[in-house]
Amino acid sequence: MTPPPSSPPAGPVASPEPLVRFRLRITRDGQVAVGPGKIELLEAVQRTGSITAAAKSLDMSYRRAWLLLDELNACLKAPAVDSAQGGAHGGGSRLTEAGQELVRLYRHVEHTAERACAADIERLKDLLAR
Amino acid sequence: MTPPPSSPPAGPVASPEPLVRFRLRITRDGQVAVGPGKIELLEAVQRTGSITAAAKSLDMSYRRAWLLLDELNACLKAPAVDSAQGGAHGGGSRLTEAGQELVRLYRHVEHTAERACAADIERLKDLLAR
Repeated sequence: MTPPPSSPPAGPVASPEPLVRFRLRITRDGQVAVGPGKIELLEAVQRTGSITAAAKSLDMSYRRAWLLLDELNACLKAPAVDSAQGGAHGGGSRLTEAGQELVRLYRHVEHTAERACAADIERLKDLLAR
Repeated sequence: MTPPPSSPPAGPVASPEPLVRFRLRITRDGQVAVGPGKIELLEAVQRTGSITAAAKSLDMSYRRAWLLLDELNACLKAPAVDSAQGGAHGGGSRLTEAGQELVRLYRHVEHTAERACAADIERLKDLLAR
């Protein structure tokens, strides 16, 4: 049986369980060269095959996505995104090998960090109120 | 010999060496319960012995520091900061045992993460332009 849609949830909708997130930022001259926002954007380009669709999926303007990718490409030895000019689909975009390597390494670092610190993170959570 | 102060530096003033930082955030219901800003503030209280001096050393208003600490204390089983009422020095503040443990664990987690990921972080840096 589906509960009646009018009945309020018994508890808070969001989980009260604390969420632990590692964020890795590589800065140079005080500017973020690589950070979580750019990595999410690269993953969205990889998933959707275009900057327009990637921006839309992240609720970001095309202009902002383009500027972030331009900034990122300028920081790298080789660009992370390759945009086809024209073509049947109006020119899609995809990650270069360097872009794929960047995403892979970044996510691997986060994952390794979470595993290496699991015990201390549990202790940190233990300091939080229920 | 000291170079003449009027001569411009030969290269950029800031080091071009990329800086890698891990940031750990513990969120609950979308709010940051523990993050780098609050930990820095606790360390400043520990160093200076008062919220006023801590706020000043971080270029933060007393009001903002107080609100951050209040928010933090509300997230914890036991408060992180203990403020003396009155007294010869107008009431200093210091970290409780829980506050000290929080700072210690947080910094230990960052340090462990950086060590565990050192090789991948070097690979990430290798993708950056010189």
